Amino acid sequence: MLKIDERLKRQVEHRTIREFRPDPIPQPIFEQLMEVGRRTATSNGMQQYSIIRIRDPHLKEAISEISHQAYIARVPELLIFIADQYRNAQIAKEKSGSSYHASDMDRFFQAFTDACLAAQNIANASEELGLGVMFLGSIHNDTEKLCDLLKLPELTFPVVGLGLGYPNQSPQIKPRLSNDLKVFENHYHRFDHYLSEIESYDQELQTYYDLRNANKRVDSFSDQVVAKSKMVIDNRQNILKTVKKQGFTDE
Amino acid sequence: MLKIDERLKRQVEHRTIREFRPDPIPQPIFEQLMEVGRRTATSNGMQQYSIIRIRDPHLKEAISEISHQAYIARVPELLIFIADQYRNAQIAKEKSGSSYHASDMDRFFQAFTDACLAAQNIANASEELGLGVMFLGSIHNDTEKLCDLLKLPELTFPVVGLGLGYPNQSPQIKPRLSNDLKVFENHYHRFDHYLSEIESYDQELQTYYDLRNANKRVDSFSDQVVAKSKMVIDNRQNILKTVKKQGFTDE
Repeated sequence: MLKIDERLKRQVEHRTIREFRPDPIPQPIFEQLMEVGRRTATSNGMQQYSIIRIRDPHLKEAISEISHQAYIARVPELLIFIADQYRNAQIAKEKSGSSYHASDMDRFFQAFTDACLAAQNIANASEELGLGVMFLGSIHNDTEKLCDLLKLPELTFPVVGLGLGYPNQSPQIKPRLSNDLKVFENHYHRFDHYLSEIESYDQELQTYYDLRNANKRVDSFSDQVVAKSKMVIDNRQNILKTVKKQGFTDE
Repeated sequence: MLKIDERLKRQVEHRTIREFRPDPIPQPIFEQLMEVGRRTATSNGMQQYSIIRIRDPHLKEAISEISHQAYIARVPELLIFIADQYRNAQIAKEKSGSSYHASDMDRFFQAFTDACLAAQNIANASEELGLGVMFLGSIHNDTEKLCDLLKLPELTFPVVGLGLGYPNQSPQIKPRLSNDLKVFENHYHRFDHYLSEIESYDQELQTYYDLRNANKRVDSFSDQVVAKSKMVIDNRQNILKTVKKQGFTDE
């Protein structure tokens, strides 16, 4: 059994929180979280992300509808992390007078990464202060609509959502795949038979109760993987179309 | 002046470390860091990332060449975070017998995000234990070559590198753009004149000394943005070509 350093306990005990007390996050705490975002590592020092803080309840409701998750409308603090090449493109235009080549996919991925790192860093800071967090990939159910709602200019793209607040639930820690299947030396390791490798995990996961449906054990991991492989949600498959519509080019 | 909670000081004082003492990271500490990775939030619980730990010095040297950064060859611990749909595709194939639709770009972005979140979470844990970290976006200089070197199977893609070790330098904290330019309410905010907004930051950044070139102040932010807008490095622009070559499809 791995002994975990006290300083890492909080990270190792991470759980998604989906129900929160109604109290808002005090502004001085919110500002500190944004300062942590500001200090996050960023590609080339270029700081290619922005954050939209959703305060308007109608907008929160609209995002909750895109995500098909009613509890998003109730989260005290909702942040959408944006890959942002617009700001630097404007700076370069003003400074050099010439048009700026910030639209290639390499720069898109830099900005996407910057946004993800800031989101996780702010999530860590939030948990450090006793807040709970939920990541929202479900904002990608309809990226085109979300771009409209947030009035995103060209060369920006919504990456991930983060809900924050004081937890009003205490979920179980969710079992995870062993690192034997995830951490390799020097080269990627392919296993001959995955199902036998994950057999005990498949069983362990069925002892987990999802609080969204607390009366029912969850499926085994392999059953979930099969179910999710068949799932086609709304416009998610078209995500690259929106990326291109936002002005990023494959050239 | 924003007062920062003691519990967030370490995050707010983040700096990139590029030179390390030669001591390796003890294995029990490494395993705890991987446990933090394992506990990171992941899209749909699908755990779509892997980590390649680079131990072979020749491989480290080859990656350092891709990155054009000699100090990478000297970093005690080098991790490459991989977006990974291969593992779950295999699980679904074995379980259901049918072919698995894990190749769309939506699933690619889910995996890319999972890899980024794990990287930042491990970076936070590392700094918590007194280690220094450097993120390496420069592995994208030649993704096709990197896929070969790491023997990455279809439906995987290298996302970001992370170098770790005990710091042998203490860089200044690097000035950053104000959150007034990065954090917005409800909608994206476009400024009329960016250069005047960043005027004081442009000056502040020139007081920063990059330890990679310690005798010289760095350029203003706007000058750096213009310089980087003109930079075209190797095969970086072709990144989406490698994504597609790895089996991800825009359908």
